[in-house]
Amino acid sequence: MHLYRTHDCSALREQNAGQTVRLSGWVHSKRDHGGLLFIDLRDHYGLTQIVVPSGADLLERAERLRVESVITVTGEVVVREAGQRNDQLPTGAIEVRAAEIEVRSNAAVLPFQVAGHENYPEDMRLKYRYIDLRREKMHQNIMLRSKVIASLRRRMIEQGFTEFQTPILTASSPEGARDFLVPARLHPGKFYALPQAPQQFKQLAMVAGFDRYFQIAPCFRDEASRADRSPGEFYQLDFEMSFVTQEDVFGILEPVLSGVFSEFTPEGWKITDGAFPRIPYADAMRDYGSDKPDLRNPLLISDVTEAFAESGFGLFSKIAASGGQIRAIPAPGAGDRPRGFFDKLNTWARESGAGGLGYIIFEEEGGKGPIAKNLEADRVESIRKTCGLKAGDAVFFAAGKGDEVAKFSGVVRTKVATELDLIEKNAFRFCWVVDFPMYEVNEETGKVDFSHNPFSMPQGGLEALNTQDPLTINAYQYDIVCNGVELSSGAIRNHLPEVMLRAFEIAGYGPEVVEERFGGMLNAFRYGAPPHGGAAPGVDRIVMLLADEPNIREVILFPLNQSGEDLMMEAPAPVEASRLKELSLALDLPKPKPAASK
Amino acid sequence: MHLYRTHDCSALREQNAGQTVRLSGWVHSKRDHGGLLFIDLRDHYGLTQIVVPSGADLLERAERLRVESVITVTGEVVVREAGQRNDQLPTGAIEVRAAEIEVRSNAAVLPFQVAGHENYPEDMRLKYRYIDLRREKMHQNIMLRSKVIASLRRRMIEQGFTEFQTPILTASSPEGARDFLVPARLHPGKFYALPQAPQQFKQLAMVAGFDRYFQIAPCFRDEASRADRSPGEFYQLDFEMSFVTQEDVFGILEPVLSGVFSEFTPEGWKITDGAFPRIPYADAMRDYGSDKPDLRNPLLISDVTEAFAESGFGLFSKIAASGGQIRAIPAPGAGDRPRGFFDKLNTWARESGAGGLGYIIFEEEGGKGPIAKNLEADRVESIRKTCGLKAGDAVFFAAGKGDEVAKFSGVVRTKVATELDLIEKNAFRFCWVVDFPMYEVNEETGKVDFSHNPFSMPQGGLEALNTQDPLTINAYQYDIVCNGVELSSGAIRNHLPEVMLRAFEIAGYGPEVVEERFGGMLNAFRYGAPPHGGAAPGVDRIVMLLADEPNIREVILFPLNQSGEDLMMEAPAPVEASRLKELSLALDLPKPKPAASK
Repeated sequence: MHLYRTHDCSALREQNAGQTVRLSGWVHSKRDHGGLLFIDLRDHYGLTQIVVPSGADLLERAERLRVESVITVTGEVVVREAGQRNDQLPTGAIEVRAAEIEVRSNAAVLPFQVAGHENYPEDMRLKYRYIDLRREKMHQNIMLRSKVIASLRRRMIEQGFTEFQTPILTASSPEGARDFLVPARLHPGKFYALPQAPQQFKQLAMVAGFDRYFQIAPCFRDEASRADRSPGEFYQLDFEMSFVTQEDVFGILEPVLSGVFSEFTPEGWKITDGAFPRIPYADAMRDYGSDKPDLRNPLLISDVTEAFAESGFGLFSKIAASGGQIRAIPAPGAGDRPRGFFDKLNTWARESGAGGLGYIIFEEEGGKGPIAKNLEADRVESIRKTCGLKAGDAVFFAAGKGDEVAKFSGVVRTKVATELDLIEKNAFRFCWVVDFPMYEVNEETGKVDFSHNPFSMPQGGLEALNTQDPLTINAYQYDIVCNGVELSSGAIRNHLPEVMLRAFEIAGYGPEVVEERFGGMLNAFRYGAPPHGGAAPGVDRIVMLLADEPNIREVILFPLNQSGEDLMMEAPAPVEASRLKELSLALDLPKPKPAASK
Repeated sequence: MHLYRTHDCSALREQNAGQTVRLSGWVHSKRDHGGLLFIDLRDHYGLTQIVVPSGADLLERAERLRVESVITVTGEVVVREAGQRNDQLPTGAIEVRAAEIEVRSNAAVLPFQVAGHENYPEDMRLKYRYIDLRREKMHQNIMLRSKVIASLRRRMIEQGFTEFQTPILTASSPEGARDFLVPARLHPGKFYALPQAPQQFKQLAMVAGFDRYFQIAPCFRDEASRADRSPGEFYQLDFEMSFVTQEDVFGILEPVLSGVFSEFTPEGWKITDGAFPRIPYADAMRDYGSDKPDLRNPLLISDVTEAFAESGFGLFSKIAASGGQIRAIPAPGAGDRPRGFFDKLNTWARESGAGGLGYIIFEEEGGKGPIAKNLEADRVESIRKTCGLKAGDAVFFAAGKGDEVAKFSGVVRTKVATELDLIEKNAFRFCWVVDFPMYEVNEETGKVDFSHNPFSMPQGGLEALNTQDPLTINAYQYDIVCNGVELSSGAIRNHLPEVMLRAFEIAGYGPEVVEERFGGMLNAFRYGAPPHGGAAPGVDRIVMLLADEPNIREVILFPLNQSGEDLMMEAPAPVEASRLKELSLALDLPKPKPAASK
């Protein structure tokens, strides 16, 4: 018989009755029951009930066991009496009558409980992460994460992609967020950087002639933490392909995402399959008020500036006259809501920094409410038609300038749909946002600047750069969005040095700047570079969506806390002076702040 | 028709004749041929011959193309004439008659050639790695690496293992090699460290209740580079299991390694399958003169000290009398080698730092050679018998003390087998070296110290520690060796705080030292820890063996050079003073060396 186990704690069934078995695991719980002792024995796989019979020699020893001690139990499998069965548990038909118990590890008094669903402070959970991870939901989350990653890998490999490891000790990125630096002991005064993403390396892999690269890639940014971003490291499904158009990239990622989301959601969930909707950036801002549209929300925003132009409703009329816009957010079925509903939304809007939230309620006989009172009936009717509404519905208005009104109307769209309970449930709705503008006017300088990624290929190529108004040029750049969450941006890259130099020139950067800052990539492109593109969906975000966890640390095995500390391993930590000396470094600590006057 | 390709460059066959196709790739080579131009077009998948017919409009343009430019060719598939076929090439039966050629990227003059097999300086190859990787052998090596890793993953998952990502920004390791440090901007004066291995995290994962962990784990050591170790990062197949004995660990890794090696070696290669030989450390040192025995080498070393004790051969007699040993390394069939063969080995031995390499040649009538002359015939005969040799064979001798003579005899064993061409070819021979001693006498201090890993479980547990001579205690620690290369060590870990404290006490470390340096792990073990063990075979070494490359950089996509520099990305590099300030650091550069006097 194996020293530790013949079966795991999820394996035994009625047909094992009579067998002598051996199990090992943690004492999940103990219950005294009229001289008998019941132990729920837990391992990675499941729970099995152990009975220590009354009068047994080992009863006393078993009673002294603390929960979370690790034991090995040898005994006979016995079918439970009919009334004692637990149908919730795969092993619920049997129990093991302990003949021997060997203690493998005695547990001290725990800082918090493993069994049960009580909440504990996060710092305590992180300090004793190895205990926290034994709790059911955490154990499930981490297993889900691993399975999701394995599934992503399998699906990429099935599509002919090859996983490569790109360097982790590398050069500082010329753009983007702040890198972590690593002093190079053998090169005094010099530093490696940890990669913010393997962007340059994956493009160089394409230049090197590999056709379809992917990597579950560790990425590092020295940035403040957010709920959906760890302060230190995160993972992305980084991929890149050669000789492809934007549609080819979409064609690769769509089945991977819909496949993975289908695999890990309960039956009955709705997941976009086939080709995901492609929504041009301009349309997304107009119809959804966001470049991350949540398609579970059925509401579409309309531009009703025209209906208010030179109208009787002075406020909006003025806004329209001064180049602003009025957007209508439909609220189907809201007509029968009490006055308080509209007041509450108005208050919310003020608290969100808007002037307020005007509305019209549509009745059989026309519009109702403060705006309708001042607005000509035909204009009310025109708005109703534009929004596709009917009597019994209502509409809210957001007014203001450009991007600001677009974004606020998007926030209102989410709020209204949430209040009216219109957001589709049990669904993951994907879309691509495409045709991002290549340039925008920098609000501070008033000059033309890149609006997103300067390394994307401009639509129309060199000719467009040379002949079009820069603000009308779109890039082959796209975002993949799920339920309003941006999983990744991606692009067809600019692989042509002459196009890149011209693109930077338009944004005000001369060739000497480009050569100095991006010379490495430019040079590589001068020795035969294929057209290529890709994307890099965030693995942590995918798992957060699937686990329905708003906090990223709930889906990471050993995360840093929000301050970037590992409370379990006590990192970061001071190092000995000799180590710094070896690295040709000295501390240059900030001066202590003067004590506050009393 | 797709913008870039209807087929890849390995796809077309005779049955595609007559089809109009589109291919994209690199101009691998060009040949003018009586007005025709032949282009070998290369992509990730293969080569296809393109013909630009004489008189075609595009001929002139095609002739101007530099090799390694990227082009798209559209044209008709044509079956080659019988004499023009290339059976070496999957597409060798056809060619594509170009009707259109679109240049996607013009290549500048290359620093070195992609086609052909010429050697170039490594620094140049690393600087232009994206060109170097296009060369056939490099492309194959990197693809092999990826396939090996994918296969390792698949095989681990099939055995019920789950891959987890352990932290990369973590705490400095309390022991082992030198860590890379990462300044923590938000915690002035404090540092993260990059993990030398996920050793502590994988053990904590076991304590957390996960049963079978693995990871293709990036590891970091700030150490001088070696041929088989990169200066910065390397990868290992890190795994750990709970509730297992040493044999369970072996049972997991054996099929993974023999499976992977079988998968990626040509037919006819011999690979250890089933259970690998288990060789106790003491036996390995005695029989192979190494704790990394190469089992392709059939020679077994014998201890023949007895045969020389008080013998006529004064030198060895003296060594035997002073506690030294004489080891015999057989040289079957060497009897007919000329005198020069033995002289050459003697010279080699002197150059290797030994006094020389004595030998006996066995003839029908007895021993021959300088030693045999002075040694009694029955002793010569006894040596012959001990070594299992016959007339026509020879034997070499290594003499000296303890480990030194054992190791040198191992070196001689390799040398002799190589010279006699006895090393088995086309074979990967695995073994486990087991029963490593827990303690040894530290030669400097004369005190008992750990001989290998202090965290392995001592055989016999606490009782052995309390009752045995420490130098007789073995650990549940093992190495996996292939063809004389150590792929990994591993161990059943010590998961019991009281055993760990006692083990350290024997090595002279009090509980306060252990608690301070290893308190994190010790504490975790106090809350219910399962017995567990594992190993971590080096991925780079496995690929080096399979690719038959002695230089690790040949199996890494973008490696650092031997000085730890990325010549392509120019890392490490100086950083701006403001970045250092932000990290609360200042440079403390070594003083320049005084100029040499003229």
